[in-house]
Amino acid sequence: MRQFNEDTLTAAVVSRLKETKDKRLREIMTAAVKHLHAFAREVHLTEEEWFEGIKFLTAVGQKCDDKRQEFILLSDVLGLSMMVVALNHKTSPGATEATVLGPFFAHGAKEYGYGADLRERATMKGEDVWVSGRVLSVDGKPIPNATLDIWQAKADGVYDVQEANSEFELRGRVKANAKGEYAFKTYKPKFYGVPTDGPVGDLLRAMNRHPMRPAHMHAIVSAPGYQQVITHVFVEGDPYLDSDAVFAVKDSLIGKYTKVNSPEEAKKLGMPNPFVKLSWDFHLSPAGKAKAKSRKAIAPSDAVA
Amino acid sequence: MRQFNEDTLTAAVVSRLKETKDKRLREIMTAAVKHLHAFAREVHLTEEEWFEGIKFLTAVGQKCDDKRQEFILLSDVLGLSMMVVALNHKTSPGATEATVLGPFFAHGAKEYGYGADLRERATMKGEDVWVSGRVLSVDGKPIPNATLDIWQAKADGVYDVQEANSEFELRGRVKANAKGEYAFKTYKPKFYGVPTDGPVGDLLRAMNRHPMRPAHMHAIVSAPGYQQVITHVFVEGDPYLDSDAVFAVKDSLIGKYTKVNSPEEAKKLGMPNPFVKLSWDFHLSPAGKAKAKSRKAIAPSDAVA
Repeated sequence: MRQFNEDTLTAAVVSRLKETKDKRLREIMTAAVKHLHAFAREVHLTEEEWFEGIKFLTAVGQKCDDKRQEFILLSDVLGLSMMVVALNHKTSPGATEATVLGPFFAHGAKEYGYGADLRERATMKGEDVWVSGRVLSVDGKPIPNATLDIWQAKADGVYDVQEANSEFELRGRVKANAKGEYAFKTYKPKFYGVPTDGPVGDLLRAMNRHPMRPAHMHAIVSAPGYQQVITHVFVEGDPYLDSDAVFAVKDSLIGKYTKVNSPEEAKKLGMPNPFVKLSWDFHLSPAGKAKAKSRKAIAPSDAVA
Repeated sequence: MRQFNEDTLTAAVVSRLKETKDKRLREIMTAAVKHLHAFAREVHLTEEEWFEGIKFLTAVGQKCDDKRQEFILLSDVLGLSMMVVALNHKTSPGATEATVLGPFFAHGAKEYGYGADLRERATMKGEDVWVSGRVLSVDGKPIPNATLDIWQAKADGVYDVQEANSEFELRGRVKANAKGEYAFKTYKPKFYGVPTDGPVGDLLRAMNRHPMRPAHMHAIVSAPGYQQVITHVFVEGDPYLDSDAVFAVKDSLIGKYTKVNSPEEAKKLGMPNPFVKLSWDFHLSPAGKAKAKSRKAIAPSDAVA
């Protein structure tokens, strides 16, 4: 086949995909080609615009290194990451909702027990928080020995892994006990901006959008026999809850950080007085009950950090 | 706004674009977001697949350098480049049809007059060709003093600019004379494969597609008062005319390379005997008559080579 015009070209390209052996790849590439072509037709994309797009995508790729994943950031700010989460995490009623993983998960974090101090290697101070709660099934039964992968930004809004030769801080694998209880000490998260020194930052500025994310703590909660959940706990009252740059906020994920002024309680928990407390339970769906189980039960960002 | 699901998220992201000051950027980004989200929904994209996609796009960006533009190659093999050409070059009836620019145009090529020898710095031999013809208006009137930017691959299927520290070869800016006539000596082009040592090559293999392009000579023909045309001349009889990896073939662009065995004619033209002859006229649309004039009248790949 030859001699294509804008009306016949898409069918010709799709037909060229029919020898693809992997059926799923064929399905994905067919839809990708159709949508790419439809996009170009719909906006009547000019050659100069297309070349600007090529240059932008090239710059996004070239901004990536072992500390930075600019394509994930692009996917995040265009809501594509959150769409993929929405499609794949139709959890059981009552289960903790999922939200974006983001680019700053890291393997190899230290394991901690009940009450451990994630501030121990912190290079910056913040408001001291005692986080505690339980890991439960959707019907409220304690799940023993769950693992909570916890990470969050430092007080300056930067994650440990974003910095050269950094050690892990405010990050750890916290083990819940046999009664499903967990607790750890950390700092209260603060809102921050996603990195804007790359092409995605240029795009955000061109779209007149702010880069801010409401304050949050990341958690991946895993336990044998249950569906792993990748989630955040947001901070009630944060000014960016309604305009998260990556569209990740869910009402059910907003936690109440309460000020405590009690020398006795502080002493008991090994906290300074006053301090802040977050009580937060995670609810896991049983394994195999989720409509779509698309991710291996280990966080997937091996290539990222 | 918060708490999005797969049905409400797209509208939320689109609504976040409404502060974009540049109206055209808003239009393009709105369509891009809608199609990206629709694509994910349509194939029910999983997180692992999405992450494979992120890794692929990152690798495409990182394969690019001053000799290689892997994103243009990706756009080419998915037919997007040809779609953009189709949308923007609805030339007048009778005008030479446009096709893809490709990534191997280069600025700064030597200027040549009538009958010049583009083989002069060639590092590889091929079949000697005398290319000649006229640059005409769509109603057949000669256009004086047109410029023909000509480039093609060497006998090994590789372009001069693909090689480190290469000098230009089989490439030049050929000036037509006052009667619209042009002529030059070169080698007959051969079919070749697009580069397959990068992520686009991996994708082609996964799609069970060959990387071959039918033999062609590139030409950009420009003259004051006329619409510039970016085109190819293909070779009649080439085995890949029906399956060009980048979908660029048009019937009207297939040229007849004729063998000539005539010592007299060879001597007159300064060619070896026997040789090959291509007679080819280019027909230009008047400026301003084209439906879409999207490209500045200079080849746009400044950033590519």
